[in-house]
Amino acid sequence: MIIRPAVEADHAAVLAIVSPVLAAGETYAVATDLDAEGVANYWFGPTHEVFVAELDGVVLGTYYLMANQQGGGAHVANCGYMTSAAAQGKGIARTMCEHSLVRAKERGFRAMQFNHVVSTNARAVALWQKLGFAIVGTLPQAFKHPTQGYVDSYVMFRAL
Amino acid sequence: MIIRPAVEADHAAVLAIVSPVLAAGETYAVATDLDAEGVANYWFGPTHEVFVAELDGVVLGTYYLMANQQGGGAHVANCGYMTSAAAQGKGIARTMCEHSLVRAKERGFRAMQFNHVVSTNARAVALWQKLGFAIVGTLPQAFKHPTQGYVDSYVMFRAL
Repeated sequence: MIIRPAVEADHAAVLAIVSPVLAAGETYAVATDLDAEGVANYWFGPTHEVFVAELDGVVLGTYYLMANQQGGGAHVANCGYMTSAAAQGKGIARTMCEHSLVRAKERGFRAMQFNHVVSTNARAVALWQKLGFAIVGTLPQAFKHPTQGYVDSYVMFRAL
Repeated sequence: MIIRPAVEADHAAVLAIVSPVLAAGETYAVATDLDAEGVANYWFGPTHEVFVAELDGVVLGTYYLMANQQGGGAHVANCGYMTSAAAQGKGIARTMCEHSLVRAKERGFRAMQFNHVVSTNARAVALWQKLGFAIVGTLPQAFKHPTQGYVDSYVMFRAL
């Protein structure tokens, strides 16, 4: 598997991964009814540096890296990761996260923060913990899950 | 003191409050070098509902109210408050926050979250606690204070 910057030719493959994840509304605090342009504007937004995970020429995952805040908070990075539904369990999210930690450090960030990890997304929570992130905050019932109702979200953080 | 929606005629007075706070870089994780247009675009951004606190016809404070996230996170509000440097200590921030809690509930929000309360801003931290907010997370060294260096920030939260 290789991780490389997304190029124009990847856009369709990336959106095919991102769109169903957003539409499902289970893991990202983003509108669930975005059209294709809305999804593209979100994932490829001007502040996002976007990468893809490619295996045998097929894009199976994507992530973005950005500054979580500006000004006095600009030294903390933020990322979002998504893996193709057909490629779960192959370590793609882990590989992307490890790549992002290196890339963020290379860009001069001193830490990485995830603002809103939905507590029911147990696989993600466990993976980020394995990769050195700590739950530094719990947001009570801050996420309305489509089937589980109001559930907690976590703020997760690690130094780089 | 009255709190009312900001109108076009308030813009100069609002920016006269906001600009120096952002330029000081001590309390908001926002770029410190925004020009007048940048400050206006930030404070009067399309997602912000902006109010002013007025005493004897003079605008002494301003706040914005917005959804902190979209999708499954859209039921949690976020606000930012600023008081004129010349009018500190008159309870303007408290009055604005109380107003915002009512307004947020009226708009259907179920909770309010502050994402990045700089720990050195002790007066603000104490005031939000008095108004029912709890520190639900600590972001280690997530803010670079211009004179105190890297300091913690708090995530603060309360139900409505």
